Amino acid sequence: MLAKVYVTLKTGVLDPQGKAIHHAAETIGYQGIEDVRQGKYFEIRLNPSLADDQARTEVEKFAHDVLANPVIENYRVEIVR
Amino acid sequence: MLAKVYVTLKTGVLDPQGKAIHHAAETIGYQGIEDVRQGKYFEIRLNPSLADDQARTEVEKFAHDVLANPVIENYRVEIVR
Repeated sequence: MLAKVYVTLKTGVLDPQGKAIHHAAETIGYQGIEDVRQGKYFEIRLNPSLADDQARTEVEKFAHDVLANPVIENYRVEIVR
Repeated sequence: MLAKVYVTLKTGVLDPQGKAIHHAAETIGYQGIEDVRQGKYFEIRLNPSLADDQARTEVEKFAHDVLANPVIENYRVEIVR
């Protein structure tokens, strides 16, 4: 069983890394790119004996406590069998 | 128009950051987590006048040339209207 966790900065939080990537894109000639925001992505392999709701609870807690900083970041959990 | 780009390490490429997160998870008592791999996630705002296939071509090239290192990383592009 696999969990995918997406962590993104909340709207309004400055993203200097994304800005740097956007600036690089403009410099080397990508015209269609208007803004870039960088987030994090985690693939978590879970014990297959966990039930779906147990798995979701455990990963939600892990994302909230460890992977994301809930003050400035949002996170989303997806469970894949 | 929004593009989402997911960058992950290829299978077999060592992921010390993921290993460190996994180790932390074990230490603080998450029993169900068997492995963690960390990737990157980008949200790219595109010029809305681009056609879907133009947008995909531009973002695929950008992901290949700038966001990912194709020697050790895979990437996946999703276009959202």
